[in-house]
Amino acid sequence: MTSKWMSLALEKAKEAGARGEVPIGAVLVQDGKVMAAAGNRIEELSDPTAHAEILVIREAARSLGTPRVGGELYVTLEPCPMCAAALSFARIERIFFGAFDPKGGGIDHGPRIFDHPTCHHRPQVFGGMSEQACAELLTGFFKERR
Amino acid sequence: MTSKWMSLALEKAKEAGARGEVPIGAVLVQDGKVMAAAGNRIEELSDPTAHAEILVIREAARSLGTPRVGGELYVTLEPCPMCAAALSFARIERIFFGAFDPKGGGIDHGPRIFDHPTCHHRPQVFGGMSEQACAELLTGFFKERR
Repeated sequence: MTSKWMSLALEKAKEAGARGEVPIGAVLVQDGKVMAAAGNRIEELSDPTAHAEILVIREAARSLGTPRVGGELYVTLEPCPMCAAALSFARIERIFFGAFDPKGGGIDHGPRIFDHPTCHHRPQVFGGMSEQACAELLTGFFKERR
Repeated sequence: MTSKWMSLALEKAKEAGARGEVPIGAVLVQDGKVMAAAGNRIEELSDPTAHAEILVIREAARSLGTPRVGGELYVTLEPCPMCAAALSFARIERIFFGAFDPKGGGIDHGPRIFDHPTCHHRPQVFGGMSEQACAELLTGFFKERR
């Protein structure tokens, strides 16, 4: 089963790939409504923090008028340590991610951001949703670039 | 000895405190020139990612036209995991921080972002510069709020 939110995240990932960015997309949902949806814009904005997750958090926080956003995040790849920590600060309740990222992930791999006692808000995490579609998008992108 | 850049970071931290933000300040220096200086703006901007370090990276990256910034970062408190990972993405070469942060730090504490093989760029880190002044600013701020 593919969640419709993950499908939207995949669409945003594809758009990012078409812009020459690493194809990763994210959607922030609250009470069944999309608060923000974005793909990576690191190169376009010259912003090393412009990962899809950061963009949706910032947009939702701005429109809600509070840095403590809440809600559910759908993202095509396991968030990196920067994004995982930001999702904790933003008080995201649940994270659904697509592909696992042994090389750059920060939740199930590497620094495992939510596993430390110094992490004050721990979202629930569900990995592997639409895993194959999310992973294929990335491997296809990097294959083309080689 | 107090670095003049750390003094500027302390000034930015004080300004942040006066705005009701946690008093943390950061300065990004390249070839002896200040590229960006900022204090926290989390509440003001309703942006959970608006830590001083993120603000200076984003500003410098935008003005340089590349997400790979380089240079040296001076910050009054040990960066959190989000900022530590962002500093790695931004290819910061050296990080000088003031107070150590056992509760929320991400370099010498908690997830120790730079200590994992999945961290692809490791800045050199120098902690404890102007430590007392940086720490006192924070303890004074939280004492007032209680």
